[in-house]
Amino acid sequence: MAIYFDNAATTPVAPEVRDAILPFLNGEFGNPSATHALGRPIKVAIEKARKVVASSLNASPSEIFFTSCGTEANNTVLMGCIRDLGVQNIVTSPIEHHCILHFVDFLSKSFGTNVHYVPVDNKGRVIYDELSTILSNLEGKTVVSLMHANNEIGTKIDLDKISEMCKEHNALLHSDMVQTYAHFPIDVQKMPIDFMASSAHKFHGPKGIGFMYIRGDHKISPMIFGGSQERNMRAGTENVTGIIGLGKAVELAMENMEKDREHIEGLKHYLATELQKRFKDIQFNGDYDGDSLYTVLNVSFPCSADQMLLFNLDISGICASGGSACSSGTNIGSHVLNAIGSDPNRTPVRFSFSKYNTKDEVDVLLA
Amino acid sequence: MAIYFDNAATTPVAPEVRDAILPFLNGEFGNPSATHALGRPIKVAIEKARKVVASSLNASPSEIFFTSCGTEANNTVLMGCIRDLGVQNIVTSPIEHHCILHFVDFLSKSFGTNVHYVPVDNKGRVIYDELSTILSNLEGKTVVSLMHANNEIGTKIDLDKISEMCKEHNALLHSDMVQTYAHFPIDVQKMPIDFMASSAHKFHGPKGIGFMYIRGDHKISPMIFGGSQERNMRAGTENVTGIIGLGKAVELAMENMEKDREHIEGLKHYLATELQKRFKDIQFNGDYDGDSLYTVLNVSFPCSADQMLLFNLDISGICASGGSACSSGTNIGSHVLNAIGSDPNRTPVRFSFSKYNTKDEVDVLLA
Repeated sequence: MAIYFDNAATTPVAPEVRDAILPFLNGEFGNPSATHALGRPIKVAIEKARKVVASSLNASPSEIFFTSCGTEANNTVLMGCIRDLGVQNIVTSPIEHHCILHFVDFLSKSFGTNVHYVPVDNKGRVIYDELSTILSNLEGKTVVSLMHANNEIGTKIDLDKISEMCKEHNALLHSDMVQTYAHFPIDVQKMPIDFMASSAHKFHGPKGIGFMYIRGDHKISPMIFGGSQERNMRAGTENVTGIIGLGKAVELAMENMEKDREHIEGLKHYLATELQKRFKDIQFNGDYDGDSLYTVLNVSFPCSADQMLLFNLDISGICASGGSACSSGTNIGSHVLNAIGSDPNRTPVRFSFSKYNTKDEVDVLLA
Repeated sequence: MAIYFDNAATTPVAPEVRDAILPFLNGEFGNPSATHALGRPIKVAIEKARKVVASSLNASPSEIFFTSCGTEANNTVLMGCIRDLGVQNIVTSPIEHHCILHFVDFLSKSFGTNVHYVPVDNKGRVIYDELSTILSNLEGKTVVSLMHANNEIGTKIDLDKISEMCKEHNALLHSDMVQTYAHFPIDVQKMPIDFMASSAHKFHGPKGIGFMYIRGDHKISPMIFGGSQERNMRAGTENVTGIIGLGKAVELAMENMEKDREHIEGLKHYLATELQKRFKDIQFNGDYDGDSLYTVLNVSFPCSADQMLLFNLDISGICASGGSACSSGTNIGSHVLNAIGSDPNRTPVRFSFSKYNTKDEVDVLLA
């Protein structure tokens, strides 16, 4: 059995999630838009999942919209800002996920949106003073789009601080929370973001389902047009098993967040410490012992002879990653590691953990 | 147990499909973009499903792109035509699904696309001469977008004839095949359409997964931007269980198409005949005994006192529909029935069948 240290790419589906999904692959198959006896219970189940998500964020169910993935959610929010809310400027960073960077390119080309990239330091931390300067100099309506934590190197940003800066400059704030939602407590009343996006398969839910939070006072129109699903915000027959699975995964995550965090954080620090003992010149990419994902340790191995490292780990039954899964197999190097000035002669390996990993597995890796 | 006659809204997931999905909710959970031992088999499974779909259409696997639903597929094709292929005119009909009609409205407003609606007759049949006239008078590049069969009244169009007309006028042809794919044989070599869209949950696959066929010589860019999934045509971590389920559902449909058709067609004609015996003034909306879906019978009941008919059927444990599920619960009447001039004082009920329905169930309905 393989040892799985690639949980930032995707996580095992929790058995409880699978069990919650199963009835909807059997008798509970109706279309949630149908008003008859086989449709109504499906609608009820979807709305129950929506309440679970809303409650996890201290938001209203009417502010939660299910999408097919985090990517679609991120695209939809930015599209809505530009097309419906009169936004002319997007401020983002060079280490965002491609679903932000590539979509921002598209918006820039298609709508003439001005795009500004706030620089990050060598640990991937947003340089807050630069953000402040950019916001001070901008004219016209602005949305700031910054990921809560980076998927490759784990570095987190201070969204409380950024939300205050946005408020001060009357800018909207969107955050890609694919790596932090259901891993860290998030309260949209205390941290007044305008939008966020997430995806179930990063916290033991199924693939192909995500959601966006849109603060109630923002009226944006859909990106996918058709039927009146999701209160006219996202057309297409609902991915019922996905939504049910997402809801269950959120429930589990919220119930056990502190316990899971303690366990996973322990594994990360154990691996980091043991690697430092074993390798003289080991380094870590990102703010690994500062404000960072407890699920991710991006190790920078000293010698370029180790380019076969990932391959050899794979042969030994250990699954880890060189960067984000979305770019695996493409040979262009990591835009994140490039942006933080990581030494291209060193070999980066991302180990990412979940509640299902054990100290024994880390020992096997170290051996 | 309810009797389910709403298969045009969605179909029961086949047990074989559920069984094919299960491993991917258990150990087979890797990210298909990951290059390690838990990612590669998932990629292989996805590509196997793509081959099954391609083979069912006599297309190449490189022409098949998975999407989150038929709606997204339909939107993406039309977006690509306007944005990437220089199309200035869309010719469509007033009885298309809202995922075409509403998206065409959006394209018209956002890109200034010219939209022309080819009229349909009182059975919902495209008036081919009118289509010919429209195509003859248009300047600039054109895409014709017509659904292969209507979801409410079942009327099919002659796509062979239309593809010839499009060829003659150098127009592209897209067809929304959500109701016909996997129910009728479709060969894109013999019937040279440029694009088509479909959705798994209409043929015993799961909800939340669809695909589009894009003829190889058309290069369009994505609607959802991010990672390099689907050969850069559709970003976002793949809905693996959905794709696997879709592939299995296509396999089953292709194996049993003639047998299933015979059975279902028998039920439709039995219900129609028996209703005609029992009600003097019964009518059927659409071309029900002509070129039509064998899965759909849209009955027009004589008396407006029967407005509670659907409700009473529901009370009796029989699931049927007043129109499309996507518009259920909205009280604006059917745009399809309006367009074919259906008598608003009569009560329409759509009965739609699948291979799992039986003659006994029809007898219960009649009783």
